[in-house]
Amino acid sequence: MTEPGTRGTLLLFGETYHHPNLLYKTRFLAPDPIIYLEQDGKGVLYTNVMEFERAKKQSRVLEVHHFFELPSARQWATASSELEGFAGTIKEILQAQGVDDVAVEPTFPTFLADRLREADVAVHPRPDLFTELRRRKRPDEVETIAQVQAAGLDGLRAAIRLIAESQPDGQGVLRTDGEILTSERLTAAIEGRLLELGCTTEDTIAAAGPASADPHAHGSGPIRAGQPIVLDIYPFSKASRYWGDLTRTVVKGPIPDDLRRMHAAVLRAQEEGLRLVRPGAKGADIHRAICALFREAGYASLPAEFSQPPSAARFIHGTGHGVGLEIHEAPRIGQSEGQVLQEGDVVTIEPGLYDPAIGGVRIEDLVVVTADGCRNLTPFPKDLQVESLARA
Amino acid sequence: MTEPGTRGTLLLFGETYHHPNLLYKTRFLAPDPIIYLEQDGKGVLYTNVMEFERAKKQSRVLEVHHFFELPSARQWATASSELEGFAGTIKEILQAQGVDDVAVEPTFPTFLADRLREADVAVHPRPDLFTELRRRKRPDEVETIAQVQAAGLDGLRAAIRLIAESQPDGQGVLRTDGEILTSERLTAAIEGRLLELGCTTEDTIAAAGPASADPHAHGSGPIRAGQPIVLDIYPFSKASRYWGDLTRTVVKGPIPDDLRRMHAAVLRAQEEGLRLVRPGAKGADIHRAICALFREAGYASLPAEFSQPPSAARFIHGTGHGVGLEIHEAPRIGQSEGQVLQEGDVVTIEPGLYDPAIGGVRIEDLVVVTADGCRNLTPFPKDLQVESLARA
Repeated sequence: MTEPGTRGTLLLFGETYHHPNLLYKTRFLAPDPIIYLEQDGKGVLYTNVMEFERAKKQSRVLEVHHFFELPSARQWATASSELEGFAGTIKEILQAQGVDDVAVEPTFPTFLADRLREADVAVHPRPDLFTELRRRKRPDEVETIAQVQAAGLDGLRAAIRLIAESQPDGQGVLRTDGEILTSERLTAAIEGRLLELGCTTEDTIAAAGPASADPHAHGSGPIRAGQPIVLDIYPFSKASRYWGDLTRTVVKGPIPDDLRRMHAAVLRAQEEGLRLVRPGAKGADIHRAICALFREAGYASLPAEFSQPPSAARFIHGTGHGVGLEIHEAPRIGQSEGQVLQEGDVVTIEPGLYDPAIGGVRIEDLVVVTADGCRNLTPFPKDLQVESLARA
Repeated sequence: MTEPGTRGTLLLFGETYHHPNLLYKTRFLAPDPIIYLEQDGKGVLYTNVMEFERAKKQSRVLEVHHFFELPSARQWATASSELEGFAGTIKEILQAQGVDDVAVEPTFPTFLADRLREADVAVHPRPDLFTELRRRKRPDEVETIAQVQAAGLDGLRAAIRLIAESQPDGQGVLRTDGEILTSERLTAAIEGRLLELGCTTEDTIAAAGPASADPHAHGSGPIRAGQPIVLDIYPFSKASRYWGDLTRTVVKGPIPDDLRRMHAAVLRAQEEGLRLVRPGAKGADIHRAICALFREAGYASLPAEFSQPPSAARFIHGTGHGVGLEIHEAPRIGQSEGQVLQEGDVVTIEPGLYDPAIGGVRIEDLVVVTADGCRNLTPFPKDLQVESLARA
């Protein structure tokens, strides 16, 4: 391999719908496992017979073989498991290439590593193998992510339109088009719009009121006036396989004072976070600065205060994370030390406050780190009152 | 563990969006890694602070802890990688429980296995650990899968309606509502309907003509009269996390003789496959019977004939696979020996023929193995002419 931080032979194995490193190397979307070997910058791809022609056409790897070229594939039918069959094929490929030492992803299956080691192949799981390679995005990757993010913003607009058009009934429950406004309707509006734009997602958060105090709750049921509605959208492009990520929190109707104060504190923290993003900035420093702002505003934040909360509303997660072929990737902006931002990093800045009685407020932008700061890929206002946003 | 085929302590690790075994055990949908330990049938779950309250409410595990109860979590901030941090936490948990021997999934990360072994924990990757446990579905799982499959059929109906309503223009290109009928429009119709029904999918195959000769090609661009259109839909329920799987092949307009013969052979093979499904039947035997039927009909099939094809149209994949929390799971119905069907297995039967010049024909049903045969979860006709299906 010629990439920084790696040497010797790289071995990757798996389907590529959920193995971003293998997808990154091959650009081949394979629902069944494939094998990729790279030596001195030259890659070789092995696929099953059915994928072979497509791999030759679609993959960026120049040398493609299919498993049935290999004698070991004839033994698959009697292998005790699929991984056992692949272990034999990987051993055959390595032996044919004279390779007895491979670098693998840290998530390489232990079962395969054990089999290779029994055959005297040294297997080195390397947590750093793709972190540096993938975290700094090329300009074309940034543009791709910006497009995915734009689709997410369109989904957000669809939800905000529904909320803005709604009116509370006598019990304070929001209604629009004669029906109760629910988290499910918001999710359907968001994901339907994503679909029209070639995107999908694994989940959408459209949680309101106390339920939104759990940052990962998706939300369900009727939404009321005066409640915070957290809209956290992570669009995923089916064609490019890149993600976006954004969050806004809105309220329909009169805003309770506690909620308004929470939003002001989150907005100030988020703007400070964005201001601190630049090459050389440390993720843990940005996170500490945000925690300090929350404490100044009278709110608790992780880590120290968590066990003895001085306030009901608390900041209970990291400040941000990298986004790319994975929704969560390097670098992290949180408690983790040693995370230094670099030009080309694409990261979220997403502080939030969560009060079990009121709900959550979170504001999240996705930005790309530039030479002297960052470019925000999330051009959308951050007002709490939904009517202000309906015009955006 | 008390499940058949396992003993000692079970250790599972990961997020649960893509770790079906961990989801199966915990029924907790976690976007961030969690740790699960099971001894003598008693499970303990460890989550991060943010997920803790939700895990207590939503998980089926009775004992739930969060990482910050553990001193090792204080060291995460200075760990060289996220996995390094988790390695320390898993070691701490095992030591506290006096465990020095664990069974793990075969896909357990090599990096973690190495760290545990360095700490004198015996780590046994077990390919069989969940295969038997998960393959035989309980009645409630079967009903859940039947509902997901029904959503897929509704998606199929949406596509078939579009195709049936279309008319060829002067060049034989299908048009409907004034626009060219494309693979993309069919995919949008299918996936839009899935979304309305609480489902999503990773991909949809709506490939026509020669492109459909690649069983995994998704299809793109205009569709013509007289071409085979392969509609392979794999709906996924966002709430239950179970999959469905179905395929029909249709033609609008006059059907070429070669294609009609291919369809007749595939239909006969598929019906024979369905007839052979029962407890005790061997997957490899069913696959061989289908291959033999194709050969009788003058078509080549895997494995032997692949290198020297006696026909243009060939059967180039397995006959079927299990479906559940994974789209591809045990048992397999193909070349693999030792796969014996059991009551409660949910499997596809999906033979196909693929001719590079004409395209593909594939027919796929999902069935559950019953005491004396199978129950078909795919109540839908298999005609090639689209008009016959539009009334279904």
